[in-house]
Amino acid sequence: MTTLAAPLAVSIGDPAGIGPEIIAGAWERRHEACSPWGFPPFLAIGDARSIRAVWDGPIAVLSDPAEAAGAFDTALPLIQVDDPGEIVPGEPNLAGARCALDSLEFAVGLTRQGMASALVTGPVSKSQLFAIGFSYPGQTEFVAERCGVSASNAVMMLAGPTLRTVPLTVHVPLIDVPRLISVDLIVTRARIAAKALIRDFGIATPRLAIAGLNPHAGENGTLGREEVEIIRPALDILRADGFDIVGPMSADTMFHPAARARFDVALCLYHDQALIPLKALHFDDGVNVTLGLPIVRTSPDHGTAFDIAGKGQATPTAMMAAICMAGACAARRKAA
Amino acid sequence: MTTLAAPLAVSIGDPAGIGPEIIAGAWERRHEACSPWGFPPFLAIGDARSIRAVWDGPIAVLSDPAEAAGAFDTALPLIQVDDPGEIVPGEPNLAGARCALDSLEFAVGLTRQGMASALVTGPVSKSQLFAIGFSYPGQTEFVAERCGVSASNAVMMLAGPTLRTVPLTVHVPLIDVPRLISVDLIVTRARIAAKALIRDFGIATPRLAIAGLNPHAGENGTLGREEVEIIRPALDILRADGFDIVGPMSADTMFHPAARARFDVALCLYHDQALIPLKALHFDDGVNVTLGLPIVRTSPDHGTAFDIAGKGQATPTAMMAAICMAGACAARRKAA
Repeated sequence: MTTLAAPLAVSIGDPAGIGPEIIAGAWERRHEACSPWGFPPFLAIGDARSIRAVWDGPIAVLSDPAEAAGAFDTALPLIQVDDPGEIVPGEPNLAGARCALDSLEFAVGLTRQGMASALVTGPVSKSQLFAIGFSYPGQTEFVAERCGVSASNAVMMLAGPTLRTVPLTVHVPLIDVPRLISVDLIVTRARIAAKALIRDFGIATPRLAIAGLNPHAGENGTLGREEVEIIRPALDILRADGFDIVGPMSADTMFHPAARARFDVALCLYHDQALIPLKALHFDDGVNVTLGLPIVRTSPDHGTAFDIAGKGQATPTAMMAAICMAGACAARRKAA
Repeated sequence: MTTLAAPLAVSIGDPAGIGPEIIAGAWERRHEACSPWGFPPFLAIGDARSIRAVWDGPIAVLSDPAEAAGAFDTALPLIQVDDPGEIVPGEPNLAGARCALDSLEFAVGLTRQGMASALVTGPVSKSQLFAIGFSYPGQTEFVAERCGVSASNAVMMLAGPTLRTVPLTVHVPLIDVPRLISVDLIVTRARIAAKALIRDFGIATPRLAIAGLNPHAGENGTLGREEVEIIRPALDILRADGFDIVGPMSADTMFHPAARARFDVALCLYHDQALIPLKALHFDDGVNVTLGLPIVRTSPDHGTAFDIAGKGQATPTAMMAAICMAGACAARRKAA
C-alpha cells in the first residue's frame, strides 16, 4: 500500500451551501470503508465559523498544511483563507462567494506545489461567483487554467460505483450540440479519458464505449447523419491507435446493468445523455473527476443545495466518495 | 374485482424473433403475481409452428377466439393467421414479416370488435415490414390508424415499476427536436397522458412533470430558450386547465428515486431523454403503452432480439408485464 506524502486539500465551496456540513460529515465518517488505500487524511480550506455554524465537532485551525496529517485523527484540520463574517446557511452573499473562490485558489495552489496530494472541491454557486467577477464557466476551467492546461483538454468524467460517463459537450444549449461534435473532439477526449483510466484508475486496458447522438444511434444514417459522418470516422482513428472502443451505441440500451458491465467509460455527446443515467443510478454517490490535469481533482457531483443547507438533511456520501476516489487516484499516481 | 369479458389478443411479432418464446414463457408463468385482477387469459395470434420450434408446451389451436378463455388453463390458445412455412429463429424472412403484419392486423381487429379485451403486440422488425410494403413508421401508427385515431394523438408511454415516461418526439434526428417542440404538442400530449392515467391507471389526480430540453433546464434562458419560450407557456395553459404539472425540470436530476416518487409521469422532449432512464432502471420489465386509443394497447419495450432468438436466453418478463398491465387497464376501463 502506498501512503500519500501529504493530505488532500478540500475547498469548502460556498460557505452558505452544504459544503461545510458535508466536509464535517466526511471527517466524522473517516473510519468507514474506502479504497484499498484507506480513507485519506484531508485538510479543509475555507472558513471555520461557517463549519461551526452547522457542526459542533472539533476543528484544528492550522497555519501550516504540514500539520494536517498529525491533526486529522482527532480533529478536522482547516486552514482559514479569509473571513467572510457570519454566513447564514441557505443565504449566500458576496463575502461567501469570495471565500469560496479564495478557498479554491488556495487549495489548487497547495496541490500544485505538492503540499496536498489531490484536490477535492466543494460545491460553489456559479451565479454568486459571477457576481464577484469570476470569468470562468465553472471551477473545472479555473483549475485547468491554474494548472496550465487548456480548458478544452480538461475532461469531465462522472463516476459512480457502477458507471462512468464523459460528456463531450457540457453546458451548451441542446440545439448547438450537433455542430459542436467533431472527429477531433471525440478523438482528443477519448485519448485523455483512456490515459486517465490507466494512470489514475489502474485499468490496464480501458474499454471505451461511445453513444450515438440520435435515437437508435441513427439507424445507419436514416435517423441522423452524425454517427456516419463524425462518430464512425473518429472510432476508426481511435481503433487504429489501438484503443478498445465500441459504438456508436444506442444510448437508451447502454446503461442497464449487463450493458454497463461491458465498458469502463461511456463517452456521451451531451450533458443530459451523460448525466441522466449517472444521476438516475448514483445520485447520492456520484463523483465529478477532471481528467487530463497534472493534479488529481475530484468533486461531489451535486450543487450547493442552498434549500437544505444547515438543516441536517445533506448527506456527505458524495463528498466521501470524492475524497476516497481522489485519494486512490493520487496513490496510484505515486506508485506509478 | 372485475373479470374481463374476453381474453387479451397477443400478436406474435416477427416469428423469427423472440416473440414466440416470450409468449410461450408468459403462458408458462401465468400463475405468477400480477395486478389485483390477476394474470389475464390471453390468446396468441400468429403461427403455431414458430412457437413449437422453440417450445414444447401445449398449444390449443383455435378457430374461434371465444374458446380461448376455456382453453387457457391447460394450453396456450392460438389462432393461426397464415402459414409462413418453416421459420428459423434468428433468420427473418419476408414470409415471417407477412405473418407478423397479418397477426397484428387480426389482433387489432379482434380488440376493436370487443372479442379481445386488450391488444398486446409482440416485437416486429421494422426493416422487414418495410420490405413487404408496410408504410407506417411503426406498429403504433398502424394501430392508431386502424382505430380511427390520428397518429399524432396516439401517445407513447414507457412504463416500468418505478417510472413512467412519455417522449414528446420519438424517431427523429436530435437536431430536429428543438423545432418540433411546440406549445401545442406539449399541451395536447399532456392532456392525453393525464386522461389515460385517470382512466386506465386509476390515478385520480395524475402528477405530471416535464423535463427541460437544455442542460439544467436552460438555467432561466441562459443555456437555451426553449424552456422560456415554449415549455413555460405550455405549463401555464395546462395549469389553467387544472392539471398538476411541474417543470421544466433539470432532466439529469429528475430520475433518482426520491425525484421519481414525486410524479406519475415524466414528459420528455426526445427519445433518449425518456428512454435512457427507463431502460437504465427497467430494462427487463419496461412496457410500451399507447395512450389515447379507443382500445388498450401495450407491448414489451424491447425489439425482436434476432441475435438470441431460439437460444433460450430471452426472458418473458417484459411480455408478462405488458400482458399484466393491459389486463389491469382493460379491467379499469370496464369497471369505470
